[in-house]
Formats: sequence, C-alpha cells, structure tokens
Amino acid sequence: MGNFRIIHADIYTPLGNEAVKGTAMGRLHSIKDGEVEITDGIISYVGPTRSDVDSPAVDAMGRVVLPGFVDSHTHLVFGGYRPEEFMWRMRGDSYMSIMERGGGIVNTMKATREASSDELEEKTRRFIDRMAEMGVTTVEGKSGYGLDVETEMKQLEVMERINNDPERKVDIATTYLGAHAVPPEYKDRAEEYIDMMINDVLPEVKKRSLAENCDVFCEKGVFSVEQSRRLLNAAMRLGFGIKIHADEIVTTGGAELAGELKALSADHLLHASDNGIKAMADNGVVATLLPLTAFTLREPYARGREMIDSGCAVALATDLNPGSCCSGSIPLTFALACIYMGLSVEEAITAMTLNGAAAIGCAASIGSIETGKLGDLVMLDSDTPAILPYYTGMNSVAMTVKRGKVTYRNN
Amino acid sequence: MGNFRIIHADIYTPLGNEAVKGTAMGRLHSIKDGEVEITDGIISYVGPTRSDVDSPAVDAMGRVVLPGFVDSHTHLVFGGYRPEEFMWRMRGDSYMSIMERGGGIVNTMKATREASSDELEEKTRRFIDRMAEMGVTTVEGKSGYGLDVETEMKQLEVMERINNDPERKVDIATTYLGAHAVPPEYKDRAEEYIDMMINDVLPEVKKRSLAENCDVFCEKGVFSVEQSRRLLNAAMRLGFGIKIHADEIVTTGGAELAGELKALSADHLLHASDNGIKAMADNGVVATLLPLTAFTLREPYARGREMIDSGCAVALATDLNPGSCCSGSIPLTFALACIYMGLSVEEAITAMTLNGAAAIGCAASIGSIETGKLGDLVMLDSDTPAILPYYTGMNSVAMTVKRGKVTYRNN
Repeated sequence: MGNFRIIHADIYTPLGNEAVKGTAMGRLHSIKDGEVEITDGIISYVGPTRSDVDSPAVDAMGRVVLPGFVDSHTHLVFGGYRPEEFMWRMRGDSYMSIMERGGGIVNTMKATREASSDELEEKTRRFIDRMAEMGVTTVEGKSGYGLDVETEMKQLEVMERINNDPERKVDIATTYLGAHAVPPEYKDRAEEYIDMMINDVLPEVKKRSLAENCDVFCEKGVFSVEQSRRLLNAAMRLGFGIKIHADEIVTTGGAELAGELKALSADHLLHASDNGIKAMADNGVVATLLPLTAFTLREPYARGREMIDSGCAVALATDLNPGSCCSGSIPLTFALACIYMGLSVEEAITAMTLNGAAAIGCAASIGSIETGKLGDLVMLDSDTPAILPYYTGMNSVAMTVKRGKVTYRNN
Repeated sequence: MGNFRIIHADIYTPLGNEAVKGTAMGRLHSIKDGEVEITDGIISYVGPTRSDVDSPAVDAMGRVVLPGFVDSHTHLVFGGYRPEEFMWRMRGDSYMSIMERGGGIVNTMKATREASSDELEEKTRRFIDRMAEMGVTTVEGKSGYGLDVETEMKQLEVMERINNDPERKVDIATTYLGAHAVPPEYKDRAEEYIDMMINDVLPEVKKRSLAENCDVFCEKGVFSVEQSRRLLNAAMRLGFGIKIHADEIVTTGGAELAGELKALSADHLLHASDNGIKAMADNGVVATLLPLTAFTLREPYARGREMIDSGCAVALATDLNPGSCCSGSIPLTFALACIYMGLSVEEAITAMTLNGAAAIGCAASIGSIETGKLGDLVMLDSDTPAILPYYTGMNSVAMTVKRGKVTYRNN
C-alpha cells in the first residue's frame, strides 16, 4: 500500500483509545506546522513537519487536518425511497401516525426484500462516494430493513462485500438491527419475533461474522425496555457490542437501559430523562446525537450541551435512512450541533471522530491521529476548524484519506 | 454554440414573463416524457418527446427537469472570511452587537479593499463552481464591500469580467449596494454618503453599465426609510431596477417602502409587518426570503406561508456572504423553505426559478422552460421534485445546463 505523507498541516485531534467524556471533549491536541506519515495504511509518524525527510508529500499549506470522520449511526443499505411520506410529514402528519398506517419502516422493508444484492450494493456505493467527499472514512451500517432472516442477511452481506473490496473508500462497521420493527409476519407477536432473533438469527450472524454490534429500536409502540433488555442480553452473551435507539419519540427509559447494560451507545435521545443522562455518564455509554433527524422531523434537538456538561461522551452521526432522515450531510450535522445544540467546534470534532469510533467499538484503531491507528485523515480547505459550521451546510473538505489512500480531493 | 436536446424528461416549470403571485406559485406546468431543445443557447422546443427527430440527445430516463435555479440575492464577491465572528455569535453575541463593535461589514470592507481584482475573481469563480453543481444558472451579485468608489467599482468589474467569459457557468445579475453600510470615512454623515452615491457613483455605474439594479440596507442603525427612499428614487431616475434589504432585524417599514416604490424585490423580511406584506402583494414586489441567514442567526423564519397566502410573489435565495450567512446551499434553502416555512415543493421551485428571475428583473428571459428563453435547465437525480427537500441538505442535481451547455454532471 506504500506511503502517504502530509506536511505543513495544522493538526487537531482528540487523543486516546476510548471516548472522551464531558467538557474534555473541547480540548483537542494541536500541532502547528505538523506532519502525518502513513505507512501501509497505518499512521507511522505524527509531529512537527520534519525537514530531514524528503519522500514525496502533500503540502497542506497550513490547512487544518483532522482524523477522518466516523459516521456512527446510519441505515445506508436499503431499497426504494419514501419521498411521499416526507410530503405527508410536511403537511403535519406525525412520524408515529405514518408508521401506524403502514408507512415507515415496513414500506422500506418491502422494497429491500425485493431488491437484489447488486442493486443494494450499487446504491450503497453511491452513498459512500458522497460520504468520502464529506470526509467520512468509517461509517456504521445497520440491517433492519429485511426483518426476515434472508433479507437481513442480504443487507449484512452487501456491507461485507464492500468491506472486502481493497479499493473501498470507507470501512463499514456492521450492526444487526433485526429489532428495527416488528415485521408484519409477527404482528402482535413481538416476543416470538425476539425469540426467533435470539435463537435463529443472532447465532448465525455471529458464526458468519456478519455484524459486530446489535441494536434495537426501544420505543413506545416498537420494542419495550423489557423486550430490548432481553434481546440485548442475549446479544451480549454471544459477544456482540450493543447499541440502543433510545428515547427518540417519547421518554421510555432507553438511556437508563443503556446505562444498566453498559451499551456502547444510546442513540437519538431527544427525550432522554435527567436520570438517563446520568446513567449514560456514569456507565461510559456514548450518547449519539442525530440532529439531522430532529431537523427534518421538526423536533427539538437532543440536550447535547447538558449531556456534555453532565459528563457524557457525546457522538454526532447522520442517521442516513430513507424515512425520517434522508440525509448524510456531515456539514449540516456540524452546523446543527454548533448553532442549535450549543457544542463548540472542538467538541463537535471529538463527537464526529473519536467518540463516534467509541460508539461502534473501534476507538482503539480509529478516531484520532496517533501512531498505530489507521491512516484516516480529513484536510479542510481552511486554516481554521471553525470553517465546519461557518461554511454552513456546505462542504469544506479539501481532501479525504482512507488508510493512506486519497479517496477525495477537491481540485 | 450548437444544439442541446434532452428527452424522456419529466418537465416541471412555472410559466410566463413575470413573477407568479400567491398560491398560483404551487401550480407548475408539467410534461410527462417531455423534451427540451436548445438552439444557440435559446430554448427552441418544449413539449412531448418527439420520435421523428434523431439529433443527439441526453436521455433523462424519466428524471425531473426544471428551469435553472436563480439565486437572486448574494454578496458573492468579497475579500477574507469572518469565522471568528461566527464563533462570537455561537457564544450568544447578536449580529447588531458585533456590527456595533466594528465587526460585520466593515471587517469585510477592509479585506475587500485590500484584495486584488484577480484574487476576488478567483474566489468568486470557486463559489460559482459550487453553484453550478447545485443547479444555479443565474446568480445575483452585489457590490457593497468597498463602500468607496474604487472598491465598489472593483467588485462590479470582477462580475463584468466573469460575464464577459463565454465559458462562464452562470450569468451574474449585478447590483450596486454602496448603501450596505455607512463607511468609516462618512461616520455620522450618512446623508453626505448618500449624496456622494447619488451624485458621483450611480451615474458612473450607469454610464459604464456596471450594475443593473440598486439596493440599500434599510435597517435600524444603518439607513433609515427616508434615506433609503432618497437613494432609491435617484437610482430609479437613472434607470436602475431597485431592491431593498428590508425588515431583517427589526420592523422598520422597509416592506412598505418597497411597495410604495414598486421595487423589484424586498429581501429578508423576517420582521415584515402585515401592512408591509399587503404593500408587497398589492404592488407586485417580490418578497425574497433568505432562510439560510435566519438559520445561521437562529432567528425566526420569515412568514413565507402567510406571504403566499396573502398574494405575494415569494422568491428564495441564499444570501451567500462572509458574515451572517457563509452558505450558498441551494439544498438547504429548499429544506428550510419546505420544512420550516410551510412552502410546498412546487411553490419552492417557483420561488427559486421564475420568481427569483423577476426579483432581478429578468423574468422575460429566464426562470421558466419556454421557447425563446435562455436554455438554462436542471435535471434532478430523481423522478420526483420532492427529492429537493427530502434528500435533506444534500445535492440532488444530476445535471446543470447553462445556455445549452452542460456545466455540471454527476457521473
């Protein structure tokens, strides 16, 4: 894979192999006139630009270099689109009411069941191209639009195929989310569906190494806290990392459950309680905030500022999906976090890098610019990280580097 | 210039040579399996796809084709950037308070005075490349960062140079905005500054055809309604179209003044009064809404829905500038208009095309897909216009065509 060097860079990075909690998120390690060297995909040098090395190098000319962005919550493999439901929502219909009348996840489930693996892969790769342009080097991808064994496997296999491509622009961290909704085949039999996942699907997913983590949509009208606990305990016993869609629409106690189980992350959290926030802070659960979804749903944003001030490790992710949030906009995520959620630019960077990595169990290998970690970098087209929210909703990435290879370069 | 054809397109367009008022904005003319032919830069055929013509054509394969987008309010020629003021605002400082302490426009004024024409042109061209990617085919550009004669002329000359380039990706509609702020040289002598503009600058700008329109920042602490009226009356006598930055920060009566003078447009309007809305509707003033600025300033959005329901012609534009809104995001503008201002997708399309054209006095030549108008088109990567807000903050443009030439194509 050879060698990549970037010199004369203004480097900003969080440090360490685990999530950064609380206001420490705002303290980035910085190196003026810095250099990063990547050898065979791994960072082999970080420090001041060396004058005694003369191998070829990209000259950053004082521009900002950050760790590659980690989008730690997406549903990027799916069939179809749902613009008509978007129009219903704009008319004022609630997400839950659309779900109740058979729209929502079940709509995408049908299209995903019908789609071929090749179709799904092609569509996923198109999203990945956009991600690389916006600085993403690792993305989490969930199943959850099959809800039957075959299609859930198909979604995970599409991600596996991409991960097996040596030319891939991002790594995909895979998550099994069979518990995204109760499928029509199990209507009013959620417990049996959970039994099926525990007995039939999870062991098979584990055996074939098709997913690293297991997630559940813990929400009123979907899976209860009790049901979520049962599924996630089984997943933990099999060695999966666990994640929870928690307290998105109403307060259900999902954040508290995440604390109890010491989950990798609890996600959404628009309606997390004070106790839930404390439970996450006390138990090292990454609070993954998805402001694009709140934006498109016209919901109040999660209490990101309070969570950080309460000692939580906060991550930011896009939630890219065909329903509630058909957007993977990293620039808009930064804008919402900084303008509407009260995060500083430095906190938002930690949230989009090391804390995102921790939310998918990868903080030891990605998320910061340190020797031994993967050579995943973003160069901004500016000498200040403030460009991220300031150039509002617009892409400020000049170059993306994945495992030492340039995956995007603007001019 | 030759010939351009696109076939098998789902065409949606407003119709006519003037702004569309009120709820009629939501009624687009549509042609299923349509064709557009452009000859020497001018639309020469619009209608069903013809089977008896076999000149080369782009096959839209059922995707949506719209008129090229008209971004009718930007300050795209400027020196420097102001991310530090953005950080102050995020801390809670108000736009006015930053202006009062010497930040704001005067900050950019200094950088623009210092910049060479070549530097300004190169920077402007970079913005234009982004605009073309997002479907923009005409952009309005204002002076107003020189505030002295020489630099105002320099800004307008940069736009003239770009307009003289036959390879340009957009046409720039030029606006003289010397009345953007009272320059330090005229501190506490606003009347004298207005005299100077009326006697020295406007006639020279007219003689050299450097601007089509004249604009003023009518706002508490900047130029009063009286001062704005005096300047704009003089501009009208010289044959300029007139525009007003109105009622952005507080209610000043700018919208009423726009009605009184039958201005092309009144812009911002976050705090326009009911009387102001009526005055605009009654006098054919385009209400130009700039939701990106409200978004970045955390201000309430202008009452777009009410304005349309009251019979106004509404336009949408970005307000790209280095201070209050460093964004030219067309996708985010559509998202804000549809999700937060209550516009339908069809209304938003009219607002970004024909009504934008009317706001810069160009509705007879651009803004709709009709024979005789300029061959400016956008093809979306979807079979539904709903993709514009649905793919939230993300670019859904597959191809942009300016005067029959492809200026952007995604894959």
